[in-house]
Amino acid sequence: MAEQAAHLSHLEHLGDATKFSPQIHALIPKCDLLENFSPAEVRLLAHFMDVYQAPLGTEIIREGDGGDFMLMLVEGKVEVHKRDRWNTPQLIAVVDAGKTLGEMSMIDGEARFATCVATEATVLAVLDRENLARIIVEQPLLGAKLLMELVLMLSQRLRATSGRLLDLIDEQPQRLPGNVPGP
Amino acid sequence: MAEQAAHLSHLEHLGDATKFSPQIHALIPKCDLLENFSPAEVRLLAHFMDVYQAPLGTEIIREGDGGDFMLMLVEGKVEVHKRDRWNTPQLIAVVDAGKTLGEMSMIDGEARFATCVATEATVLAVLDRENLARIIVEQPLLGAKLLMELVLMLSQRLRATSGRLLDLIDEQPQRLPGNVPGP
Repeated sequence: MAEQAAHLSHLEHLGDATKFSPQIHALIPKCDLLENFSPAEVRLLAHFMDVYQAPLGTEIIREGDGGDFMLMLVEGKVEVHKRDRWNTPQLIAVVDAGKTLGEMSMIDGEARFATCVATEATVLAVLDRENLARIIVEQPLLGAKLLMELVLMLSQRLRATSGRLLDLIDEQPQRLPGNVPGP
Repeated sequence: MAEQAAHLSHLEHLGDATKFSPQIHALIPKCDLLENFSPAEVRLLAHFMDVYQAPLGTEIIREGDGGDFMLMLVEGKVEVHKRDRWNTPQLIAVVDAGKTLGEMSMIDGEARFATCVATEATVLAVLDRENLARIIVEQPLLGAKLLMELVLMLSQRLRATSGRLLDLIDEQPQRLPGNVPGP
């Protein structure tokens, strides 16, 4: 929790996510991660999450930083920027309520892939790796469901990203493709 | 099991993976999926897998086909080909013992992303979605561990693939000059 506190100390902590579970449940139709969750499962999951508030303009996470948590946007809007080879931030995505961010670092503990900035007043539910591990031990079926959804989400993103990469490589016949993810 | 049999009926079935668990365990140092598994966990996992043999030249899985299983190469070597925009198969990877293939279709049930051809006599351990679901219910901690490893593996591939995609986009000549920083 010390690390999470350090990386989120610039945000206002609104407490654990239990009292937000009706709002989180209302996100299900637009939330890939929760699409197969029941209201009871969302309530159970909310026990393991914390909610933070970020005013417009807040840099929520920064490319290259540590941080072993993922975020679910409960309200608001976030821009995702990644630095290009000239170190200039480029907008790579705009995400709104129901979307999740930072799953890769929660899982692999590696540096943040991109920077996320609130472009509206934003409310975020946070799940860190320690609480993910607690879910797996204390609520193994909920843990398995959450992990299955993460695997599914990453798998679909990997298909889309690999497809786009191969399309671009096709356009550059002089380029050796090297290894891209398997089937 | 009917679907798995249909998609693997061209391979010789060597039985369940239990008697191969010493060989599978020996793969751990080169197997991302199993890197944190103990011998006891490998033995447990092997109960849920089947082993097949594919002679040199066998097309093990085919791009675009259905098939809800993943493969672990126990022995041999496999080439991975994906059709480009001109429908010509392009070699995108060569994988050997310890590597896994087909995780995305096991998880999301979508069509195979690429074709895999044995370039040596190959022995494969197969895990299908039905058995993954059985592991989660019957051995929830083993299931959670397997899913965590899958999430980790996909996450690292997604980082690598996204990084390469963004590098290629950076190199695109049609980029707006405004996006390139001045002196």
